[in-house]
Amino acid sequence: MANIPTGIPEKTIERLSEYRRTLLKCSKQGITHIFSHVLAGIHGITAVQVRRDLMLIGFSSDTKKGYDVQVLIDYIGQILDSPTNVNIAVLGMGHLGQAITKYFNSKGLKLKITAAFDIDPQKVGQEIDGVPCYHMDHFEEKVEELDLSMVVVSSPTKVAPTLVLPIINAGIKGVLNFTSTPLNFPQGIVVENFDITTLLEKVAYFVKESDSNA
Amino acid sequence: MANIPTGIPEKTIERLSEYRRTLLKCSKQGITHIFSHVLAGIHGITAVQVRRDLMLIGFSSDTKKGYDVQVLIDYIGQILDSPTNVNIAVLGMGHLGQAITKYFNSKGLKLKITAAFDIDPQKVGQEIDGVPCYHMDHFEEKVEELDLSMVVVSSPTKVAPTLVLPIINAGIKGVLNFTSTPLNFPQGIVVENFDITTLLEKVAYFVKESDSNA
Repeated sequence: MANIPTGIPEKTIERLSEYRRTLLKCSKQGITHIFSHVLAGIHGITAVQVRRDLMLIGFSSDTKKGYDVQVLIDYIGQILDSPTNVNIAVLGMGHLGQAITKYFNSKGLKLKITAAFDIDPQKVGQEIDGVPCYHMDHFEEKVEELDLSMVVVSSPTKVAPTLVLPIINAGIKGVLNFTSTPLNFPQGIVVENFDITTLLEKVAYFVKESDSNA
Repeated sequence: MANIPTGIPEKTIERLSEYRRTLLKCSKQGITHIFSHVLAGIHGITAVQVRRDLMLIGFSSDTKKGYDVQVLIDYIGQILDSPTNVNIAVLGMGHLGQAITKYFNSKGLKLKITAAFDIDPQKVGQEIDGVPCYHMDHFEEKVEELDLSMVVVSSPTKVAPTLVLPIINAGIKGVLNFTSTPLNFPQGIVVENFDITTLLEKVAYFVKESDSNA
């Protein structure tokens, strides 16, 4: 079995997550084997990159028919997934919070959004897309009760800084922040600050670049 | 004035976009100067990284009071922004499309979401968050009429592959794809495939890693 390596680069982790989603789709379609260059083509990268990523995680069972789809899915799962289910809370159940919840919970992953928090009386006490919505005032007690270990911050940007202390106090281990205020946490809490604006500005920049080179 | 450099790494472009958002907030609060280590602290990176990024774009007017906030905002604008406005269309006006539109257009950037496309009769013909929603059947003609040059794909994942040809035919230059199907385009079209699941799986992985090192 896998001798799980550590210290895998962030970009490789991202691609492993992406490969697995593609492999799951292949598996659904009854595809049992896939060549590295096919997997690479789907993701717009080189076969060398795919092979390098898989070598990094110690996977090398390339056959004449390519990689065994199910074996590779399981192998990547051993790297990425926690041995137990991971419960995630969404803080802010507006359009973005609802989009993320719906999208994410339809995937059948070990990561699950199992609670939402908001302060809007129209939302608190309701079940939205199958997830119960609680008042933010009860965040800390609910984190313990429901064994929540990660949060998605999809609140209005102005509210985001006020969530930092409750998140720390509740013992949350991982934060994915979608607001445009970067949030800082003490060591021991993993945070990914992610602003959609950055992605659009980046695409726009490279469009401009390719225009000026044309 | 800036002698605009080319070939700036992707990660630097991302950070420049993030620095600018922070600087705009500082400026709103009446802050006129900022030290590199303060800017770095807000973004959870080192001052060396900030200075390296700004050196890469040829910005060096560090003073004893730190960087001049407004000068740096303008300078980054020269790098990132197109000389003209860039019009963006959202393909798929569900929760995610609406979240992106609302969020993005509130920022007062040169990039603007000015049109949405959907096939839902409840949405087509309506104005949603200030943006007119057209039927996808009229995509190509509207792209020309409204001078649209970029799209955000926020449709259901299953629909995404059917959007590739219309996007190519319409002459779109940049694509930001939020569905979980990676989309490939011919050279000359900039595409960023972005799946939220990847971010959450990445955070979960590093939480697991830090747990096992503790």
